[in-house]
Amino acid sequence: MSMDKILYGVAYYDEYMPYDRVEKDMEMIAAAGMNVIRIAESTWSTWEPQEGVFDFTHLRRMLDASKKYGLSVIIGTPTYAIPTWLAKKCPEILALTHGGQELYGHRQNMDITNPTYLHHAEIIIRKLMEYVKDEPHVIGFQLDNETKSYDTCTPYAQAKFVEYIKEKFPNIDEFNHEFGFDYWSNRINAWEDFPDVRGTINQSLAAEYRKFQRKLVTDFLTWQANIVAEYKREDQFITQNFDFGWTEHSYGLQPEVDQYAASQCMTIAGGDIYHPSADFLTGKEITVCGNIIRGLKQDNYLILETEAQGNPGWLPFPGQLRLQAFSHFANGANSVMYWHWHSIHNAIETYWKGVLSHDLAENETYRECCTIGKDLKRIGHKLVNLKKRNRIAIVANNEALTGLTQFPTATRDSHGYNRVLRWLADALMDMNVEYDVIPADATLLPNYDCIILPAFYSAKEDYLMALDSYVKNGGNLITTYKSGFSDEYLKVYSDTQPHILHKALGLHYDQFTLPYNVTVSYKGQTSDASEWMEMVHCDTATSLAQFGHHSWNHYTAVAKNTYGKGQTLYLATLFGENTLKAILKDFLAEIACEDTHKADAMKLPYEATCPITVKQGINDEGHHIMYFLNYSKDPQAIRNIAGDAKELLSGATVSINATITLKPWGVAILEYSI
Amino acid sequence: MSMDKILYGVAYYDEYMPYDRVEKDMEMIAAAGMNVIRIAESTWSTWEPQEGVFDFTHLRRMLDASKKYGLSVIIGTPTYAIPTWLAKKCPEILALTHGGQELYGHRQNMDITNPTYLHHAEIIIRKLMEYVKDEPHVIGFQLDNETKSYDTCTPYAQAKFVEYIKEKFPNIDEFNHEFGFDYWSNRINAWEDFPDVRGTINQSLAAEYRKFQRKLVTDFLTWQANIVAEYKREDQFITQNFDFGWTEHSYGLQPEVDQYAASQCMTIAGGDIYHPSADFLTGKEITVCGNIIRGLKQDNYLILETEAQGNPGWLPFPGQLRLQAFSHFANGANSVMYWHWHSIHNAIETYWKGVLSHDLAENETYRECCTIGKDLKRIGHKLVNLKKRNRIAIVANNEALTGLTQFPTATRDSHGYNRVLRWLADALMDMNVEYDVIPADATLLPNYDCIILPAFYSAKEDYLMALDSYVKNGGNLITTYKSGFSDEYLKVYSDTQPHILHKALGLHYDQFTLPYNVTVSYKGQTSDASEWMEMVHCDTATSLAQFGHHSWNHYTAVAKNTYGKGQTLYLATLFGENTLKAILKDFLAEIACEDTHKADAMKLPYEATCPITVKQGINDEGHHIMYFLNYSKDPQAIRNIAGDAKELLSGATVSINATITLKPWGVAILEYSI
Amino acid sequence: MSMDKILYGVAYYDEYMPYDRVEKDMEMIAAAGMNVIRIAESTWSTWEPQEGVFDFTHLRRMLDASKKYGLSVIIGTPTYAIPTWLAKKCPEILALTHGGQELYGHRQNMDITNPTYLHHAEIIIRKLMEYVKDEPHVIGFQLDNETKSYDTCTPYAQAKFVEYIKEKFPNIDEFNHEFGFDYWSNRINAWEDFPDVRGTINQSLAAEYRKFQRKLVTDFLTWQANIVAEYKREDQFITQNFDFGWTEHSYGLQPEVDQYAASQCMTIAGGDIYHPSADFLTGKEITVCGNIIRGLKQDNYLILETEAQGNPGWLPFPGQLRLQAFSHFANGANSVMYWHWHSIHNAIETYWKGVLSHDLAENETYRECCTIGKDLKRIGHKLVNLKKRNRIAIVANNEALTGLTQFPTATRDSHGYNRVLRWLADALMDMNVEYDVIPADATLLPNYDCIILPAFYSAKEDYLMALDSYVKNGGNLITTYKSGFSDEYLKVYSDTQPHILHKALGLHYDQFTLPYNVTVSYKGQTSDASEWMEMVHCDTATSLAQFGHHSWNHYTAVAKNTYGKGQTLYLATLFGENTLKAILKDFLAEIACEDTHKADAMKLPYEATCPITVKQGINDEGHHIMYFLNYSKDPQAIRNIAGDAKELLSGATVSINATITLKPWGVAILEYSI
Repeated sequence: MSMDKILYGVAYYDEYMPYDRVEKDMEMIAAAGMNVIRIAESTWSTWEPQEGVFDFTHLRRMLDASKKYGLSVIIGTPTYAIPTWLAKKCPEILALTHGGQELYGHRQNMDITNPTYLHHAEIIIRKLMEYVKDEPHVIGFQLDNETKSYDTCTPYAQAKFVEYIKEKFPNIDEFNHEFGFDYWSNRINAWEDFPDVRGTINQSLAAEYRKFQRKLVTDFLTWQANIVAEYKREDQFITQNFDFGWTEHSYGLQPEVDQYAASQCMTIAGGDIYHPSADFLTGKEITVCGNIIRGLKQDNYLILETEAQGNPGWLPFPGQLRLQAFSHFANGANSVMYWHWHSIHNAIETYWKGVLSHDLAENETYRECCTIGKDLKRIGHKLVNLKKRNRIAIVANNEALTGLTQFPTATRDSHGYNRVLRWLADALMDMNVEYDVIPADATLLPNYDCIILPAFYSAKEDYLMALDSYVKNGGNLITTYKSGFSDEYLKVYSDTQPHILHKALGLHYDQFTLPYNVTVSYKGQTSDASEWMEMVHCDTATSLAQFGHHSWNHYTAVAKNTYGKGQTLYLATLFGENTLKAILKDFLAEIACEDTHKADAMKLPYEATCPITVKQGINDEGHHIMYFLNYSKDPQAIRNIAGDAKELLSGATVSINATITLKPWGVAILEYSI
Repeated sequence: MSMDKILYGVAYYDEYMPYDRVEKDMEMIAAAGMNVIRIAESTWSTWEPQEGVFDFTHLRRMLDASKKYGLSVIIGTPTYAIPTWLAKKCPEILALTHGGQELYGHRQNMDITNPTYLHHAEIIIRKLMEYVKDEPHVIGFQLDNETKSYDTCTPYAQAKFVEYIKEKFPNIDEFNHEFGFDYWSNRINAWEDFPDVRGTINQSLAAEYRKFQRKLVTDFLTWQANIVAEYKREDQFITQNFDFGWTEHSYGLQPEVDQYAASQCMTIAGGDIYHPSADFLTGKEITVCGNIIRGLKQDNYLILETEAQGNPGWLPFPGQLRLQAFSHFANGANSVMYWHWHSIHNAIETYWKGVLSHDLAENETYRECCTIGKDLKRIGHKLVNLKKRNRIAIVANNEALTGLTQFPTATRDSHGYNRVLRWLADALMDMNVEYDVIPADATLLPNYDCIILPAFYSAKEDYLMALDSYVKNGGNLITTYKSGFSDEYLKVYSDTQPHILHKALGLHYDQFTLPYNVTVSYKGQTSDASEWMEMVHCDTATSLAQFGHHSWNHYTAVAKNTYGKGQTLYLATLFGENTLKAILKDFLAEIACEDTHKADAMKLPYEATCPITVKQGINDEGHHIMYFLNYSKDPQAIRNIAGDAKELLSGATVSINATITLKPWGVAILEYSI
Repeated sequence: MSMDKILYGVAYYDEYMPYDRVEKDMEMIAAAGMNVIRIAESTWSTWEPQEGVFDFTHLRRMLDASKKYGLSVIIGTPTYAIPTWLAKKCPEILALTHGGQELYGHRQNMDITNPTYLHHAEIIIRKLMEYVKDEPHVIGFQLDNETKSYDTCTPYAQAKFVEYIKEKFPNIDEFNHEFGFDYWSNRINAWEDFPDVRGTINQSLAAEYRKFQRKLVTDFLTWQANIVAEYKREDQFITQNFDFGWTEHSYGLQPEVDQYAASQCMTIAGGDIYHPSADFLTGKEITVCGNIIRGLKQDNYLILETEAQGNPGWLPFPGQLRLQAFSHFANGANSVMYWHWHSIHNAIETYWKGVLSHDLAENETYRECCTIGKDLKRIGHKLVNLKKRNRIAIVANNEALTGLTQFPTATRDSHGYNRVLRWLADALMDMNVEYDVIPADATLLPNYDCIILPAFYSAKEDYLMALDSYVKNGGNLITTYKSGFSDEYLKVYSDTQPHILHKALGLHYDQFTLPYNVTVSYKGQTSDASEWMEMVHCDTATSLAQFGHHSWNHYTAVAKNTYGKGQTLYLATLFGENTLKAILKDFLAEIACEDTHKADAMKLPYEATCPITVKQGINDEGHHIMYFLNYSKDPQAIRNIAGDAKELLSGATVSINATITLKPWGVAILEYSI
């Protein structure tokens, strides 16, 4: 979806304010150069204080004041937290989960399959849509917020699951065979005997329930999108605020949502990225999570939430907020919206701080926002709708993630899959190689010169065969341990590993273990193997590194292979990032993908190394835009080797071979007329 | 309450004995120079083996034997653990808590609002009181034991809570506004919709429920006191065995009881202090917790329980038990009573060892008790009712504690408040500056030259204004980060921080973060900032230390200010104790509070440094008593610079300027006739 | 039970196979030199897919194919995991435990006292027995698998417990007195008031419930044995697959089963040993757990399960699988059976890998099995029924284990008892001193020269008196802290500690603490004291080491004593293994047990030190067999000092004083014709 300007703004909640400030706030927001607010998405109990009683006073105030100050509005449906009266009326709306019965209080704790919930959710959505649909400055709608299934395991949800399984497996014996239920006497010999899935020790069943829960999310969002679509104007968009696999911040692929499927019902993909800041700001999350969102609809995307002051410990150093904003734009985002305008005075997010502090006055953060707003007014039209043409794609896949969660490697947590994905993605960013993130969809393979497939645990055969053809026909493939290990139901393939891929990779293994005192060396870069190691035998492949170990050194840790017209690289264990980068550098050079900035697609060369990140694309005018982002507290210098250009923030001309100096956490944006 | 002698004794349980020993035990107790036993407080199922059946055989035996050996008796009501028959009769007496439904077994697991519990508790209290009230050697009564609400969240307790809220907020909209329930759709638009508080994510509600639970304790103890008062003689006291915020030992302010309110119904304050021993004995807990109890009724107090051999790892080195006893007396305690006489042969406190070991014979611990008993017989009348006139007070406050528990700083535990309180209190003790601990009561401020206000998170405006006036009129104030941050319902103040106090402090801040690689330096003492840091701007204040950091060094870590006739000191972060002591030393010198031993009030100078602790007061004869306590395994020497004195333990004369030598863990007590 | 050959084989599950392989598998198994499969023990839902519907198709296939390839069969009853239809029919079969209500899914989660469960279990056992009893190649039966009570706390089980208590204590007052229920008002004054044991804080009650749960296991297995015995032929054995106290592998005595009692109903003892491998393979678990099983019926035993590839991280280095197999035989095992033949393609044990990997093809592990099978065919008759005549026995006791679990020492886990047992047992193995493991049965004492009694917490007086007599009459006793501390109901003895034993030991203590900065030194070997320390006074004993500490050095850490004709050694704390070995070496030398290989019983001397382990015994031909096991990745050499011999694996003659070279993880087996 092409946009006419970059959206820069905040989430706003008149209903949370300690006193009447809506006019003052809108004035300050506009004065900062912001142009949009996002409202309404979490306060059902305010809009409908009692069943059937509606009160849009706060909404009215926000709509009127924003209009007065020329701000656009995104409306969120308020369905991700239910009112007290609804919990009282129908306590079984609160989900039963693996952790037991939910109590009222938290958001996102209801059974999204509960008909009473859906009935009341539909009423409030329709009332809200009717109320706002004709406001000219409402530009779009956000469905719910960070929607999940909230691990619903209610009898209602489980009954739907049994129907879902019966549709997939009309023959119950096939179901038992595929899921291996003979094991430990778990056979389900009649559908009526289906036990509570929460007790299962069968990961095939557990994973399938997770897949079913993801489908519930898709169904729920599609249902909401259809309601909203009945009301919305042609010019208004529908989006969702997707979030990500979470450690103490956004980390990688979201385990609980199939965002590729769920975003089908939307006009534009949106999401929130929260990342470490201050000494720990690296831009890595902005890149990897941004690339995930950009890949959902293969288009520019909205950052609907990101941190201003954020959590304790995230207060940005001077310049960081600005660096972050331009990093999002450099990555293809068409908006940056802070969560949230003002810091909240009560409840669980009191310390998740907005642009303004609790005193609701100008502060350092607000002042830095003003500089960004001012820049965007001046040069935003050069930055909006930035298009990328990346030659490399990382495949991100929920089933693989669930597989590695159900069967974790050495670190017994749920981040095994994202750890591998981040290992590869972060190395690429350090090397200033831009990449897309795509789903495991065979039709997308031809778009790329190189496919990176991290720990593709749970793999359908047709996709593995597509990868085989892709390489045979000249594509290049980088993959890791645990790829092609099981079928889509987590049943381990019972032939040569990696299943099907072993041919393209030119190697196989039949044993594996956990590495202990094992190293991997490549061109002087030695690091410890960790997480997992497969006892790889090279068939046609060439070993790039054997395991460093007294007994396992006859097995291969890293191997490359030529298969048909393509090349492959296999990483049989996890190891240090410097070793990885050395290996990737040579492999990408060999397949001529080493410097995406020199590549035909982009036509613009660049040399840079961490901590300077270079990102580029082509803007609406067909010009090349190149961002230089300094992720460090020290100034950095870099030479413009690509051609004469204009630095957009300063307006200065930068001749070829001139040196650009970046302040600590500084940004430069070069526009080339080519 | 003035007492005629120091009480020295033990908790005694004839009912726990493996065989009949009551005569032998009383003889041994008396032989040790002890003069009191505390009995009856936990064995309801022994006194009332079946509903309405009473059996005071053990009580009779203890009363008779103690009388025979001249021992006084304190009677405890046995209501903190219910009998099996009562649990069987009325299972709902067992509390429903945040952790779920309690099972029978543990003590202190009942719903103290349950009417059936109260009914039966009243019966056993009355029966017991009738039985013992006329015993001449019963000197007082202990209500229940370490009473709490046991986190009762039963429907019964929650209904009372709704009534309590309705009384405070007749207007439900004001309740919603003050508690910020618009947030995440938590509005309670009708009282009938009030959800189970256990699920709440609203800290204002959670904290108010904790406050309500503390009120339940006050109500319960007052109810018991009224019953006991119907029976007790004029000469008999009523007390309670208060305990403290607990880590692996007594640590600081008790979070679950408002001891200031709860002690109103009592004649004398009492408590138990359990502290690390052996290599970890410092006297810090004896001081800080003792000062808390002394402050409850601003009077001498009872140590009703403290460790003899105690828990595994607490076995005192030779001399330590003796040092501990005199430390309590030096602090204003009028009793030391061990929990307990004999080690128990079954159940959960088998290894919480008493004076005697399981073999019930004389041992090292008993022999050390004998030396203390002997000393007390000789000089106890010089030590009893020791009065302190401290010029410095630390404010201890439950609401602030709850605030920092609900919104913890970097260390995500429940000790944030006590950590700050202990940081300040322990520095004072190291500096040999004695202090009182007082509640946040404006009427007490004029009693002190300097008020120390640790992390006063949740602050009523009238108290903040009283502090402002106090400083303006010449009082001195030391306070820290997070003071004045929210109102009494944990709603963050929405104007300049620290709310109201910023004027007296001469500074403000509007941002904060967690320190990482940040230091604080003062006069050569450098240490790491931790827990929290506020971005302080000095208005009229003088910065004593800026943050040591590449980006945050334009903010102030420590500042002092002159405001009206008073001075203030602000600590915007937590840092090392040596840095703190250097800062406090200068500030206290400036306000002439640096050496409380040189102060007019006490008239007696003293110089000492850790590990020698000096404590003093004025005894019943109007003489100054000065204790020298050696908290180390090495001998120490100290010069008597205050005047000619008598060392009470040895009876030796100590001339001015003579040197006193203290043995490892040794004690000297000087009496000055001035 | 004397066997005619060593059993070498695998657990096999036709029902788990992804496709039809039974013929191929049996052929491969036989080709590896294996001779037995174990089948049927966990797939009730396959044998009885619906109530009353039986389907032994898979069983038939396995019986037929195994017969064709000359393999023997062990049949397991499938009762340790219930079918879905049974859970559906009778949900209360799923146990209520300390952790709450079990859900369907896991094995071993039912209430083994539930009559409906027992009814259906009996039906499937009888059907299965009828089906297989006449198969000539079925050689024995395994009752259930790794049976426990699964912590059943159902009302049904608890009612049985009350009956069990009433039988022991017809007088309820005696029950209250013995269990100390006066404490904290826990008295049970009427049987009807008996509370849910899950809430108890009385360790006497908790421990007695654990003892009762162990009795449930004995009763259950005896009940199964009686059913099986109705069908089995004279030549068929009955066994059970006992497992062990578990850390991340088999560790020591099983807490949840009284294996001595439970094995009474069996023909031969069996068990499974899973141990660390690769860099962490030491043979310690094979030895200590093997010695436990051998002690159950004081006879050779079956290893019914042990790892092939095992868990991730356990993949054996080349040679290790072979070393492990011969280590079992060297220890007196008459079988080694791998769990399992093939790696499973679904569910929780997908990564608990068998001989074959998921690709079901020959691999390194299979090839190493083949070498073992080949050796056994050639020399197995020399190795079977190896008899040991050890002079030292370690007493292993469930009640002591439960005591130390209820009252843990410094490390607050449940392994306190096994930690002490392993400390002593592992030192003996390092010293190449072989030992038996025996129950606390006075009649067994005369069989041994030296009894080792680790942490014998909970001790009946008659056994303590038997030990006293044993020493008085010339036996030697080594014991540790916490021995003789409480009676059988965890009531601490109220006289001199260690109760009764203090006389034989010539010492006593009445205090103890946790060691902090405390050391123990003996002949230059200094190490830290840990876990516990008792303040020991020597009476007649000689101190071998005092505690190294500034204040506790007047107490004894290690003492020996002469009592009557015997000697004793007391270890009052836990310390480093080298210090322990130095102490044991001298003590065993003094009592002439230092080198069991030089002892009369065995007549064959040997010198060896870790990592070479020497194990020996007498084979069916009356010849001495001596194993040399190299537990290291480096080659080792050892001199044959015992006499001329034949090395059985190579067939080579080894003259006296010749040097044998052992490969990494290598094995040599010498047969002496003496």
